[in-house]
Amino acid sequence: MTAPKVSINTDVGEGFGVWGVPDESPLLKEVTAANVACGFHAGDPDILRRTCDTAAELGVSLGAQVSYRDLAGFGRRFIDVPAPSLVNDIVYQIGALQAFARISGTEVTYVKAHGALYNAAARHEGHAAAIVEAVGLVDRSLPVLCQYGTWVWEFAVTAGLTPHAEIFVDRGYTDQGLLVARSHPGALLVDPGAAASRAWEMVDTGKVVSVDGVRATVLPERAPAVALCVHSDTPGAVAIARETRATLERNGVAPAPIGAR
Amino acid sequence: MTAPKVSINTDVGEGFGVWGVPDESPLLKEVTAANVACGFHAGDPDILRRTCDTAAELGVSLGAQVSYRDLAGFGRRFIDVPAPSLVNDIVYQIGALQAFARISGTEVTYVKAHGALYNAAARHEGHAAAIVEAVGLVDRSLPVLCQYGTWVWEFAVTAGLTPHAEIFVDRGYTDQGLLVARSHPGALLVDPGAAASRAWEMVDTGKVVSVDGVRATVLPERAPAVALCVHSDTPGAVAIARETRATLERNGVAPAPIGAR
Amino acid sequence: MTAPKVSINTDVGEGFGVWGVPDESPLLKEVTAANVACGFHAGDPDILRRTCDTAAELGVSLGAQVSYRDLAGFGRRFIDVPAPSLVNDIVYQIGALQAFARISGTEVTYVKAHGALYNAAARHEGHAAAIVEAVGLVDRSLPVLCQYGTWVWEFAVTAGLTPHAEIFVDRGYTDQGLLVARSHPGALLVDPGAAASRAWEMVDTGKVVSVDGVRATVLPERAPAVALCVHSDTPGAVAIARETRATLERNGVAPAPIGAR
Amino acid sequence: MTAPKVSINTDVGEGFGVWGVPDESPLLKEVTAANVACGFHAGDPDILRRTCDTAAELGVSLGAQVSYRDLAGFGRRFIDVPAPSLVNDIVYQIGALQAFARISGTEVTYVKAHGALYNAAARHEGHAAAIVEAVGLVDRSLPVLCQYGTWVWEFAVTAGLTPHAEIFVDRGYTDQGLLVARSHPGALLVDPGAAASRAWEMVDTGKVVSVDGVRATVLPERAPAVALCVHSDTPGAVAIARETRATLERNGVAPAPIGAR
Repeated sequence: MTAPKVSINTDVGEGFGVWGVPDESPLLKEVTAANVACGFHAGDPDILRRTCDTAAELGVSLGAQVSYRDLAGFGRRFIDVPAPSLVNDIVYQIGALQAFARISGTEVTYVKAHGALYNAAARHEGHAAAIVEAVGLVDRSLPVLCQYGTWVWEFAVTAGLTPHAEIFVDRGYTDQGLLVARSHPGALLVDPGAAASRAWEMVDTGKVVSVDGVRATVLPERAPAVALCVHSDTPGAVAIARETRATLERNGVAPAPIGAR
Repeated sequence: MTAPKVSINTDVGEGFGVWGVPDESPLLKEVTAANVACGFHAGDPDILRRTCDTAAELGVSLGAQVSYRDLAGFGRRFIDVPAPSLVNDIVYQIGALQAFARISGTEVTYVKAHGALYNAAARHEGHAAAIVEAVGLVDRSLPVLCQYGTWVWEFAVTAGLTPHAEIFVDRGYTDQGLLVARSHPGALLVDPGAAASRAWEMVDTGKVVSVDGVRATVLPERAPAVALCVHSDTPGAVAIARETRATLERNGVAPAPIGAR
Repeated sequence: MTAPKVSINTDVGEGFGVWGVPDESPLLKEVTAANVACGFHAGDPDILRRTCDTAAELGVSLGAQVSYRDLAGFGRRFIDVPAPSLVNDIVYQIGALQAFARISGTEVTYVKAHGALYNAAARHEGHAAAIVEAVGLVDRSLPVLCQYGTWVWEFAVTAGLTPHAEIFVDRGYTDQGLLVARSHPGALLVDPGAAASRAWEMVDTGKVVSVDGVRATVLPERAPAVALCVHSDTPGAVAIARETRATLERNGVAPAPIGAR
Repeated sequence: MTAPKVSINTDVGEGFGVWGVPDESPLLKEVTAANVACGFHAGDPDILRRTCDTAAELGVSLGAQVSYRDLAGFGRRFIDVPAPSLVNDIVYQIGALQAFARISGTEVTYVKAHGALYNAAARHEGHAAAIVEAVGLVDRSLPVLCQYGTWVWEFAVTAGLTPHAEIFVDRGYTDQGLLVARSHPGALLVDPGAAASRAWEMVDTGKVVSVDGVRATVLPERAPAVALCVHSDTPGAVAIARETRATLERNGVAPAPIGAR
């Protein structure tokens, strides 16, 4: 059996106008994939340009982090947009990012939903299908990062696209293998060593121990690819990413980029 | 000497959300190039999708009609945006449209500035240069529609890009070969026959008779390509475009699309 | 027993920028209350100014038609905004309109939710409560237009505010006294005579006959005030409003403005 | 002769959505007037609410800091908006803030233009007149903060409004009494003692020594009111404001709020 291809991704470029982003190089040096905000929840064209340049320089994969149109709410609020419009909203965002990626000498190699759309991808059939439809229209080869067993996962499989099972290095899990809500205790893991060990355990076994001590499945059997997420706004994100990378390497797994390049 | 390649273009897709666009097929059947609003002054993703589909079906070239970020002002107000940001704003818009063009089985084959940015392209060095820089970054093969002798024309030539000299079928000209402001008498030509005849005269001679009876130069010597514009909001635009096409054909010139395809 | 105060309201000012509104005087002459879009789903400051002027000239009451922040979706999409933020979004919109009302020599005398927020007011506890809280903060004397028996009705009563029971002249009702979805047959009543007769029957009896022939309650017993709504985008809205007004008058009821002035 | 009423103002509430503002109490405790962003360049409804509450608690005057509609550019870019539309844009912003001020138990007592609009108020006749017209429409008693001798100053005087001569504690001046551009050396004063001393000298003499050593006039003779501005984003703003306040008090001048309350 082949070892899965493991990547580490993080969100970047999430500023707007005068509300800029700091230098994200330190974090980008520890990961293999950058989820770039495309302008609907954050990310103005100047930021997209600079973020693509930085990611290209550091050899990090570029993913389109697509969102509901919601600058005021940072894409964290569910919006009941008709599915056909959501398809087009997603196409628009990917297209814009692709232009900047090409200018930076690289390309967009995957898609990940942001915030409330990420959550809707798990539970809302219409919106999950819209994500898959949009990716299928733009480029069928682009992997879709998502949680195993969700609606978007199933639709991606059915459509012949490539879902990448995503697991969260810095977030607590429920007994059902879902994320503990941010407002609850145990939602965040901030100790780099503990987070990295648990991440490896998830990669190795496909299971996680929930905040209540139950083992939950988070990966399919023989997942060909696993996407580890470290949120850029988690305190100590750089250290967590670095420790995760080191732990993977100690176990003989070299973190890889996502997608074709 | 080779006859110039003559195209007829018009603005399309200039709605937003509930403020939709009517069926633009009748006008698109008479032209060879569609300037598609890309979302900054008008044009939401649903409209972009539909407009690209219609243009592709009718075999009309697709151009990115790029604008200042100004939905409230429809891109008709000069905005003193720093040139490097304007470059990125333009890249963003072209990229978004490219994604929809590909889905419709076609591609973006030219760029045209909209509204206040079109005017700035003539007079404002920084913004004229920004347009050229953006096109150069995205795709050096894309022609830039603009008036002959303006800053953007000069910068495009210098940069080795392809400016297409644009002349206006339905607008009055000043002695200097510029457009008469919309608020003045003589600004609009609404008689299809008169407009079409004058358009042919411009194509044939490179000159126009101004509203004050002076001959002004509007085309370079031996222009390899001439872009005739009919504004979609001019009363009787369809009839004007049809008559322009017929007049060109009577003179042995078959209107052609713009750009590579 | 006192006859209820009956008003006729309609939505106005629902354009944005170049997507203007036609002259709405003909419709405003037939109604007694204008629900003015405040900028979140439609309505730019120029439109607010002009709409307030027209309503003031015609002696029509001004209501703040408050919405989710959703220009792209015209406020027709539910947005899961946190209730405390929704309170502030509503306050912002009312405040903006109040400034224009004062300039026009009049004032805002009621509040009505728009689109998806109107629907949420019926079913979503948090958002219904937010509407009531916002009105309570701005001006406790402002009536809230809403359907009888909904969450927002109940919260308004509990908070000591003044709900006005709203019924729809031009829309079909379900057996439960709710509106038939726009996508279903029977959703719209376009015959002015039939619509006006049914409206009077609702005012007179507090009941409506549903599209399936069932009598449903739409008004409380002895409602002190009844708000009749004619949608400005229903075909023949002016004729429907005129016939409704005439029918009320034939029955001895003079349509009245809403609120204090 | 009566001593002028001297106030110290600063910009507050300049975040948007997830790009929040820190606790601004430390700075607000040192000033007497808060220029609140009203949503066009920054400031969402949640921030407006909180900022008004804080200012009211601390007894600081509330001013409407009105801007061009330009969230992407933070209002720092000139926009050639037609003057009548600018009037309405300003009315809208003041009205929205007034609603929050009333909820906080206070009121808006002055108006100050932000960013590019502040600069345009000095040099652009149409936009200067628009500011004055808007304030005149909303509340003729509201002082307008602006530089002495500019267009907006003159129009305010002519219209019978109350201009407050504003001088800048933390910015270098040119020989003409204008601000040194931020990109030039000498643009910023960051030493609290030096800045405060110079501020007092300006208040006391009506003159400032420019960066090139020339004395320039910055206040009218016998100005009844002087507004001292400390930019909230100048490094050490709190210390500069504190030292300015202390210096005024040492010279027998107690900093006062702006406007009626």
